Amino acid sequence: MTALDTLIQYLSRLPGIGKKTAVRLAYHLLKTDEAFVQGLSRAMAEMREKIRPCSVCGSYTEQTVCKICSDTRRDHRVICVVEQPQDVEVMESSHEYQGVYHVLNGVLAPLDGVGPEDLNLSSLVKRVGDSEVQELILATNPTLEGDTTALYIKQLMGDRDVTVSRLALGLPVGGDLEYADRLTLARSLRGRTRI
Amino acid sequence: MTALDTLIQYLSRLPGIGKKTAVRLAYHLLKTDEAFVQGLSRAMAEMREKIRPCSVCGSYTEQTVCKICSDTRRDHRVICVVEQPQDVEVMESSHEYQGVYHVLNGVLAPLDGVGPEDLNLSSLVKRVGDSEVQELILATNPTLEGDTTALYIKQLMGDRDVTVSRLALGLPVGGDLEYADRLTLARSLRGRTRI
Repeated sequence: MTALDTLIQYLSRLPGIGKKTAVRLAYHLLKTDEAFVQGLSRAMAEMREKIRPCSVCGSYTEQTVCKICSDTRRDHRVICVVEQPQDVEVMESSHEYQGVYHVLNGVLAPLDGVGPEDLNLSSLVKRVGDSEVQELILATNPTLEGDTTALYIKQLMGDRDVTVSRLALGLPVGGDLEYADRLTLARSLRGRTRI
Repeated sequence: MTALDTLIQYLSRLPGIGKKTAVRLAYHLLKTDEAFVQGLSRAMAEMREKIRPCSVCGSYTEQTVCKICSDTRRDHRVICVVEQPQDVEVMESSHEYQGVYHVLNGVLAPLDGVGPEDLNLSSLVKRVGDSEVQELILATNPTLEGDTTALYIKQLMGDRDVTVSRLALGLPVGGDLEYADRLTLARSLRGRTRI
């Protein structure tokens, strides 16, 4: 195997990178300037060295407590529960949410051997117990696993004095009825709002 | 800027990698095992160290002369002229061609300041003059620049005793008339063959 094949094999193991893209990337990396390739390698190493989970919410940060958790202007009485650290960025991009987050680092998936003890759940229970949390917005994905996990968390809260909610399901803004799938359409009908 | 942002910026400078893909890749590189990340860095460095242009055709190789140029079973009387080293792989994947290659490392693009002296052309003229080359298949892309470059090479050959040909244009195999663009359709009509 040539050095080029080795690199192509590495690249095609990345998510969403097929064989053709890997080949194109490898040729690009061969022709581009040395500084870029060294910079990329250094950036990968540094990122892995510096980034750790926030001790409060479990999201990624370079500090002990992440920027959102340490921001006193945010509403710490509302916690949005997400599956992955990158979901925090996605929620933030809506510029709609002022509360804080909690990252589960996964979803319940019994078939893949992921149980409640594998998720960042005990710290969530502790957070709700310790502070004046009023609402838990369960923003796990609208999938079988995400729904199951949301239900599990709802039950975990028992009769604590906390509102548990779930993100609304429906048509995407700017979407087209014609392209909506049957299930989404059914949910958007069931969740219709008065105007 | 955090270490994660730095990496995302590097990744999104790769061809075909947009912001969203860069973010997904960065998060993957954060979670994946250390051996993979180190292996990827090493593979990039090794590839750049080992791979050089073939002294005959200009394609990429780890030797002085590439595998195809040093293969005596191939027909060295036919040279297929391509734009980029990766085009050699593409042509080879058709399993149709038995001749050898010549890599131009670009195309004539006066607007981008790429002239004949920037391409691997003098060595092509020398190859044709030195050996018993009978045919030159110009496999530059069917674009304005590719066509111009092909025409330039045709003129460069002057009255040498060498056949100069160009890849056929037409409908893709398995394609659909409905999805063919106007120009391709016109070319496939003009180049129609008797059956």
